[in-house]
Amino acid sequence: MSEIRQDPTTKEWVIIAKERAKRPHDFVRVESRPELPDFLPSCPFCPGNEAMTVPETLSYRDEKTRGWRVRAFVNKFPALTPQGSTARNAENGFLLRLDGVGVHEVIVETPVHNRPLALMEDAGVIDVLLAYQERYDALRPMPFVKSIIIFKNHGPSAGTSLRHPHSQLVATPIVPRHIRLQHEVARSYYDDTGQCLYSDLASHELSVGERIVVETEKFVVLHPFASHRPFETWILPKARQASFCNASTEQIKELAHVLRITLLKLYRGLNNPDFNYVLDSAPIGEEDSDYYLWHLRIIPRLTKVAGFEIGSGVYINTALPEETAQFMRSIEVE
Amino acid sequence: MSEIRQDPTTKEWVIIAKERAKRPHDFVRVESRPELPDFLPSCPFCPGNEAMTVPETLSYRDEKTRGWRVRAFVNKFPALTPQGSTARNAENGFLLRLDGVGVHEVIVETPVHNRPLALMEDAGVIDVLLAYQERYDALRPMPFVKSIIIFKNHGPSAGTSLRHPHSQLVATPIVPRHIRLQHEVARSYYDDTGQCLYSDLASHELSVGERIVVETEKFVVLHPFASHRPFETWILPKARQASFCNASTEQIKELAHVLRITLLKLYRGLNNPDFNYVLDSAPIGEEDSDYYLWHLRIIPRLTKVAGFEIGSGVYINTALPEETAQFMRSIEVE
Repeated sequence: MSEIRQDPTTKEWVIIAKERAKRPHDFVRVESRPELPDFLPSCPFCPGNEAMTVPETLSYRDEKTRGWRVRAFVNKFPALTPQGSTARNAENGFLLRLDGVGVHEVIVETPVHNRPLALMEDAGVIDVLLAYQERYDALRPMPFVKSIIIFKNHGPSAGTSLRHPHSQLVATPIVPRHIRLQHEVARSYYDDTGQCLYSDLASHELSVGERIVVETEKFVVLHPFASHRPFETWILPKARQASFCNASTEQIKELAHVLRITLLKLYRGLNNPDFNYVLDSAPIGEEDSDYYLWHLRIIPRLTKVAGFEIGSGVYINTALPEETAQFMRSIEVE
Repeated sequence: MSEIRQDPTTKEWVIIAKERAKRPHDFVRVESRPELPDFLPSCPFCPGNEAMTVPETLSYRDEKTRGWRVRAFVNKFPALTPQGSTARNAENGFLLRLDGVGVHEVIVETPVHNRPLALMEDAGVIDVLLAYQERYDALRPMPFVKSIIIFKNHGPSAGTSLRHPHSQLVATPIVPRHIRLQHEVARSYYDDTGQCLYSDLASHELSVGERIVVETEKFVVLHPFASHRPFETWILPKARQASFCNASTEQIKELAHVLRITLLKLYRGLNNPDFNYVLDSAPIGEEDSDYYLWHLRIIPRLTKVAGFEIGSGVYINTALPEETAQFMRSIEVE
């Protein structure tokens, strides 16, 4: 029999389809990927082509060679731009619109065309996460910024066209409905219990153990109870921090290690799957709330989303998080 | 400059990326599809293979030949099954689960393997919609059914593996979060205004005109103001009916015509694109509410969903609904 589970952070229901369930190794990618060179002359993100990607907003450079290790710049085709007004205009009272005011940046993670985060040293991933935080901090004070979404698309099924490893940052003048929903649920839980839902969740998962992938001093990596999709993975800090901008450098360093290990387990275990990840963080101005916890969600793109999911918002997941977490634990990465 | 628009029915924001916007004809599919036969001996939905799909729950048959025109049966790999309890069990107070109790059926739309709805006569589409309603009515009284979702996946990008034209029906023991959200928004609007949000929306769109695709006596077809994806299409009845189960046979007949015309415009205009559609209807027990309106949403699968959408729930739409609606209006179908 299938089981219906509720995501405690959004109250969304998920059908865990045990009858149709696949074993974790059924999700291993069988097609081989095209071999990528470490440098591609036509790639706008490769060294030497910096003029194709301006204006630059950040770079971390080697003291000696002055070559960059990480680089950020405004997206050439930005979804949002800093000009305009956040005033809402209403067409007939209920059709609200506002200018597409905001910031859309790209963060190139390495000068090496074919080196994904999973195959870097910790130091490289630390650079990337520090760049996230530096750009987050730089954009946060802008008056029109109400929410900052940092995300990554890896592979064609995850919506990327450029293979050179990169992340994106979008600063929006509105708080997305999904983030509001997470906050409403966490606040209601806080009002009822006096506790942070996410911290209680992490404690519960650690006590149960079966959905844990990795635990370190400062972080817990798990496959959530109501995973929407196979191998969905959350990285939760143990600290109580609503916003990523409050993470200390020590936390960032440990997060880099934990993220690399987690991505490497996916890389080895599932043969370099396509995936997205996204950093959920408190809306601007709510950084010090007690009830929310920033976290990172990794969503491998192993299955297609069909009409039932689009229509109802209820996902049918054909993998058991308890089994996929066990599979991930078994993948050696050291 | 881009524009940010709010879907009035869910309060979700959508970025209409004018800078990156494509023209409607840029979405025409260029790859050709494999030519399908009108009968495939190995297809479980083709006539002669009925024993592969049991138990049958409905069939409409020709009086003379006794051959079926439309046929429904329980899905061979059901996401939900009628056994079990709807009682919630809580693991440590906040991890809720219940048995996967419900019904999952398949509705085969035609005995002809290669005849999609778009290429049928009206009579064939009427059969399909009457079958939807008959199964809806049959399952509604079951004590564990709280919501019924009818949907269709057309083409591989839309999540189908079997090419033979078919729809699916899932009766769930929970009300999906997305449907609750639609209802909360519509109820709040009703409390504020005394009006049905959807009816006001349809009236507004008819008065503006630029996003209308087709209008008939009983239905309005439009590309919504805050379309999440290119060519998203809604079919709204003009009647005030919260549930599809209350639609009259006259309405069903006209809906069949309108749906066929709309799908044929997509078929001709975009070269048979992959798409999903879903029938949004009131939760069981709320069929007579004044504030909701059942409707049909068609979502062509022309673009990939990436990390930003997954993370924030905010879609970046690279087409202008005003332009795509105009394009659809220009496609001849009679």
